Amino acid sequence: MSDDERTARAALSRLFEPQDAAALALVQAAGAQDALRIACGQLAAGPELEREITEILEESGSGSSWSGLAGALQRWAPRIPDLAPERDLATMRRLGGRIIIPSDELWPRQLADLGLQEPVCLWWRGVEQELPPAAKAIALVGSRDSTSYGASVTGDLAYSLAQRGFTVVSGGAYGIDAHAHRAALAGGTGALPTIAVMAGGVDRFYPAGNEDLLRAVADHGAVLAEVPPGSAPTRYRFLQRNRLIAALASVTVVVEARWRSGALNTAHHAESLGRAVGAVPGSIHSANSAGCHRLLREGGAVCVTDATEIAELASPSGEALPPDKAGRTQVHDGLTLEDLILLDALPLRTTSSVEKLAVVGGLSVESVRAGLGRLGLLGLAESRHGGWKRSGKAT
Amino acid sequence: MSDDERTARAALSRLFEPQDAAALALVQAAGAQDALRIACGQLAAGPELEREITEILEESGSGSSWSGLAGALQRWAPRIPDLAPERDLATMRRLGGRIIIPSDELWPRQLADLGLQEPVCLWWRGVEQELPPAAKAIALVGSRDSTSYGASVTGDLAYSLAQRGFTVVSGGAYGIDAHAHRAALAGGTGALPTIAVMAGGVDRFYPAGNEDLLRAVADHGAVLAEVPPGSAPTRYRFLQRNRLIAALASVTVVVEARWRSGALNTAHHAESLGRAVGAVPGSIHSANSAGCHRLLREGGAVCVTDATEIAELASPSGEALPPDKAGRTQVHDGLTLEDLILLDALPLRTTSSVEKLAVVGGLSVESVRAGLGRLGLLGLAESRHGGWKRSGKAT
Repeated sequence: MSDDERTARAALSRLFEPQDAAALALVQAAGAQDALRIACGQLAAGPELEREITEILEESGSGSSWSGLAGALQRWAPRIPDLAPERDLATMRRLGGRIIIPSDELWPRQLADLGLQEPVCLWWRGVEQELPPAAKAIALVGSRDSTSYGASVTGDLAYSLAQRGFTVVSGGAYGIDAHAHRAALAGGTGALPTIAVMAGGVDRFYPAGNEDLLRAVADHGAVLAEVPPGSAPTRYRFLQRNRLIAALASVTVVVEARWRSGALNTAHHAESLGRAVGAVPGSIHSANSAGCHRLLREGGAVCVTDATEIAELASPSGEALPPDKAGRTQVHDGLTLEDLILLDALPLRTTSSVEKLAVVGGLSVESVRAGLGRLGLLGLAESRHGGWKRSGKAT
Repeated sequence: MSDDERTARAALSRLFEPQDAAALALVQAAGAQDALRIACGQLAAGPELEREITEILEESGSGSSWSGLAGALQRWAPRIPDLAPERDLATMRRLGGRIIIPSDELWPRQLADLGLQEPVCLWWRGVEQELPPAAKAIALVGSRDSTSYGASVTGDLAYSLAQRGFTVVSGGAYGIDAHAHRAALAGGTGALPTIAVMAGGVDRFYPAGNEDLLRAVADHGAVLAEVPPGSAPTRYRFLQRNRLIAALASVTVVVEARWRSGALNTAHHAESLGRAVGAVPGSIHSANSAGCHRLLREGGAVCVTDATEIAELASPSGEALPPDKAGRTQVHDGLTLEDLILLDALPLRTTSSVEKLAVVGGLSVESVRAGLGRLGLLGLAESRHGGWKRSGKAT
């Protein structure tokens, strides 16, 4: 039965476009196997089922575009002759891959946060191993036409995140995606350093220029897609794919993006899932940072400048709190206002009398005496021949 | 009487350090003239007045450091012999300047937002003219050791803000401050393009390297300080001066700042006054942008990348709403999901049949026909010899 379920879902992933709400509601209402039979006209759907689908769609907020099962069946019909799930499963086995479905042990639990939009299955090329929970996965995304700044920042972040045991999730594209996968592979210390979520079938490594990189990702990480082998990466599928990247990770970081960019789409998916979104700032003269700045202005994106700040977003409980960047503290930190005024009044080279310091600082003679005592103890003031000056430490 | 009030405040500004809470409470309770007499020991303060001062300090949250008038009198005593308000006023007249006090027509009303910390007077070098209300004043602040990026950004912002009729407020220092004043002077079209608020007396243009610039600010804008002529710009006074910059403007923008920087102090003053704070993003590799990124992460700072976004913060009612940066819209904006899928399915060079498009797109033949009609009307699809392809506009 589990094999029948698997085969049915393999077929459904070819029959339906990703995120076809009516289709997903049908699967939820009837189960995958009956959904397939209904979609293929081998089983009739009664008014009861149709009502149930309508309810599911209304609950998930997708009811408005629903005009009944008849229209949906017409939409699905042209692809029925192409269905060959056994062939697709065999292709995956031959490539050293597999399909996973929500009832599998290996299914990433965090995808359930997508609700009705959870994919019916995932086609997976790479070694069978545990996929990371959301808390251990960070999405790094950005433009294809990355600058040298974006490349260098992505490399630093991905390497450092992989070193800390995070899995870097990205989309396998040129530019920021490629830099993210490459550096994660280099930095990975143990389990699954990186996941590429593809918009087309995982039988083909697309784009061609990333073939070697994606092969390495499959060898050491995972290459995933919700569409079956042989599917073309259409623009629509790129947009749908982005929700999977956002859902797999606890944090989505946009490293470089233009004012309009698919990476912003991924960030919006993350936001609507209640996941953290980070944006890397850059020069305001760089069009490739305009999208990041837009997220910082308009969205709930957090400004992130290093891997520690990103790790912090992944575990907001404070486990990964960054060390204070302050570096060395300043000598005058923590002084009272009066002592700060007194320190300002103390000459650097010559010395000054207590009375003179009182005039310059606007302090009583008594306060000056007491303050000089405190500053002396801190090594900030010293007396010479009855006068006072700043000591070396305070200059 | 108004002249006596003016002379008294001139004297008080030399007697008290900026933001001496006890002194400011004394002025509030007794008035400037009696406050001066009490501070100089010419008038006794009864227990009634002392109680009143205590109450004012407690209300303003400054009560904790207050140990009674006796201690304050001791603090003020050393400077009494130095008081020469008539001389200071004469100095200002000779320099073409003046003193203004809260009862003056010209007093910037927005300083009242400082509450007890409103200065007792302002020493003003420059042409007598109306000072801008907060809504027309923007503070641009940042590091002294600015980078070429900071210089160029500050120049662009200040020039553009001055062109729009805003007054650019800054601190007259090297680096970002100087770039802000200089570009505002260049961009100013009418009234008062820029104000420099100094930490020391306005009789001296400090730092020396900015002498010509500050002279130009005095000639075309205003140079202000709360401390009297001859006062040295101590570190304490720099920090106090920052509250005046923040209070004069409706928006404080930090263009470049290190992790620790006086500019962040100005930003915190602005925040605590409920004023808007903007931060300009920059390279995460630049230490001079680390303070800006810190504000974006920790503070309530808004990411700003041009003068329009800053102007928007100054009038959040929407008068200065920026035009949509989107530039040209994308041809596929606003398409339904089905039409987007169909557009993806349409070949670029060859043509495709309606039936083929239904299979590729996963759409019913009917939907494909209707969708091709819509895309055709939009100029995104065209038919050739009975088949369909994308039209030039959609590629």
